[in-house]
Amino acid sequence: MTLHWPEAACAAPDSNFAEAARARQGMLTKPPGSLGGLEAAAIQLAELQHSAEPAVDRVWISVFAGDHGVAAEGVSAFPQAVTGEMVRNFATGGAAISVLARELGATLDVVNLGTVNDPGDIPGVTRRIIAPCTANLCEAPAMTPEQLDVALAAGAASVAQARAAGAQLFIGGEMGIANTTAATALACALLRVAPIELAGAGTGLDDAGIARKVAVVERALALHRDVGAMDDPAASREYLRRLGGFEIAALTGAFVAAAQAGLPVLVDGFITTAAALAAVRINPGARAWLLFGHRSHERGHGRLLEALDAQPLLHLGLRLGEASGAATAVPVLRVACALHNRMATFAQAGVSTA
Amino acid sequence: MTLHWPEAACAAPDSNFAEAARARQGMLTKPPGSLGGLEAAAIQLAELQHSAEPAVDRVWISVFAGDHGVAAEGVSAFPQAVTGEMVRNFATGGAAISVLARELGATLDVVNLGTVNDPGDIPGVTRRIIAPCTANLCEAPAMTPEQLDVALAAGAASVAQARAAGAQLFIGGEMGIANTTAATALACALLRVAPIELAGAGTGLDDAGIARKVAVVERALALHRDVGAMDDPAASREYLRRLGGFEIAALTGAFVAAAQAGLPVLVDGFITTAAALAAVRINPGARAWLLFGHRSHERGHGRLLEALDAQPLLHLGLRLGEASGAATAVPVLRVACALHNRMATFAQAGVSTA
Repeated sequence: MTLHWPEAACAAPDSNFAEAARARQGMLTKPPGSLGGLEAAAIQLAELQHSAEPAVDRVWISVFAGDHGVAAEGVSAFPQAVTGEMVRNFATGGAAISVLARELGATLDVVNLGTVNDPGDIPGVTRRIIAPCTANLCEAPAMTPEQLDVALAAGAASVAQARAAGAQLFIGGEMGIANTTAATALACALLRVAPIELAGAGTGLDDAGIARKVAVVERALALHRDVGAMDDPAASREYLRRLGGFEIAALTGAFVAAAQAGLPVLVDGFITTAAALAAVRINPGARAWLLFGHRSHERGHGRLLEALDAQPLLHLGLRLGEASGAATAVPVLRVACALHNRMATFAQAGVSTA
Repeated sequence: MTLHWPEAACAAPDSNFAEAARARQGMLTKPPGSLGGLEAAAIQLAELQHSAEPAVDRVWISVFAGDHGVAAEGVSAFPQAVTGEMVRNFATGGAAISVLARELGATLDVVNLGTVNDPGDIPGVTRRIIAPCTANLCEAPAMTPEQLDVALAAGAASVAQARAAGAQLFIGGEMGIANTTAATALACALLRVAPIELAGAGTGLDDAGIARKVAVVERALALHRDVGAMDDPAASREYLRRLGGFEIAALTGAFVAAAQAGLPVLVDGFITTAAALAAVRINPGARAWLLFGHRSHERGHGRLLEALDAQPLLHLGLRLGEASGAATAVPVLRVACALHNRMATFAQAGVSTA
């Protein structure tokens, strides 16, 4: 077996920087531990950035868009044309992630991997078209092996651009009508849990819609069963090919590539976390490079976070996707860094200790 | 009975602006409701600010400091000298809230109401000295009626300054060694629950320390029982006098004054929320003007939030005080406003609806 790039080694966090950061937190003018999750985030960033002064000033946001053959099963509250329409909205600045990127001073990289309603060439959108949409995962593998390779590479290409731009944090987001169905199928396969336990409302399904989604995922899992053992990276990759989507695979590729390059990642919601789990199953060294922005309102997100032993920063009941939850958490990471880097120690301030 | 200023009517939120904001959220290019708590915050701010474009760009942070006679009972992990030392640290810029205020571009107003270790005149600190510390609430009322009046007025004075400066959001914070004990006593009295249910570690007590704190609060409640009926504003005010502290009463005064002036408030953690509950018991119209920044790690905070039917923005396990949790939540409110004000509608973006 030849080594495929996603299986190559990830960069190594430096525990010396974590220890130094932890020691500094204990010297700052506050009761030890009293900044809770902000302390943990600063320590993790110090460890990943190999820095005594962690920072997330330069943030790169890639939003990957792609359509899904499974949309034909009526599993979304929105028509499939919306994927392409939203690609345009990302570029023209009206979408949530467009507003957030401007607020954060972040770079927004929009990558069109293939939409049925093709918006064509748009300034601010990179075209890496694989096909108008994936195959219907109820009836066939969503992607061919070649399509999966191209999608994974598209994610890695965005990470290479982020690195070239000097990004200190990588955020990945997605857009694709019906992609909570694909993510649910992928999560069920990777976690070995039944669709009824993970399927949620997505963009706004009612109970009948969720029941339909469950039945669709059950059909998909029946078709794509026995791919391999749960801890086999090749099996995880095969599940990603059969049950994922162009944008989901691009996210997986991006997360692995970021970990290989030593670039910290802030993970968004349900779909992105499914892609992150696939990344960690394909390459366990990727886990250390992941921070988690928020706990989404989407039903299956909690199980995915649990499987990744993730402690998200925010719990705001968001369920939009597009990287919006991760972007909303960036200011909290910035606060964590500012406190870590700029508070006085007890000695500096002449404050008595306990 | 003469009407005392804290009982005068609060300003009225305008539900027309809430309805318009809710309608706009339904037209923005996202699934309805998918921005969860960010939508709720934008709608609440629109209602309170009587504005179609809510904003929290100009933030005023008042930190009130005061010492507590009950510190003599050994209920804090830190020596009493720290209150005065931290007042200096707030002003010289090394404390958490100093760093946060700079990050936010917020005004930081530090008010010394009386510390045993008096830092003296310091640029950036307003002296409104009431006494070196309160009386020990186990043995006597913490404050005289005159001291309570001065403390309430100190809070109102800061709100007047905030309004004069054009603040769009008021944040109150506190510093005072042993003030989780006072706040626990006040909360127990206002909620009619036993100290064992609310007493927590504060700045870092161990189990024996918490047991000592419970015993101290039990003694205080036995001494100050039968003050009046739970729904009697005068009784709540009397509990605040007997069990509170200078900084806690200043916060209560500030919250009532902000509500009377129509200035939205972002509440911080356990001690601040106890002050907020006192404000709402004294003047129920104040409740509408309160937003809640975070759920603190301090044990009793959940019960206080429940009593106020509050949904805090953040859950980061913070337990520092100084308004640090509320300040950390400001960027999230800014994100909520930016999304509300600047996202495109489905019609503007030419995106299909569900």
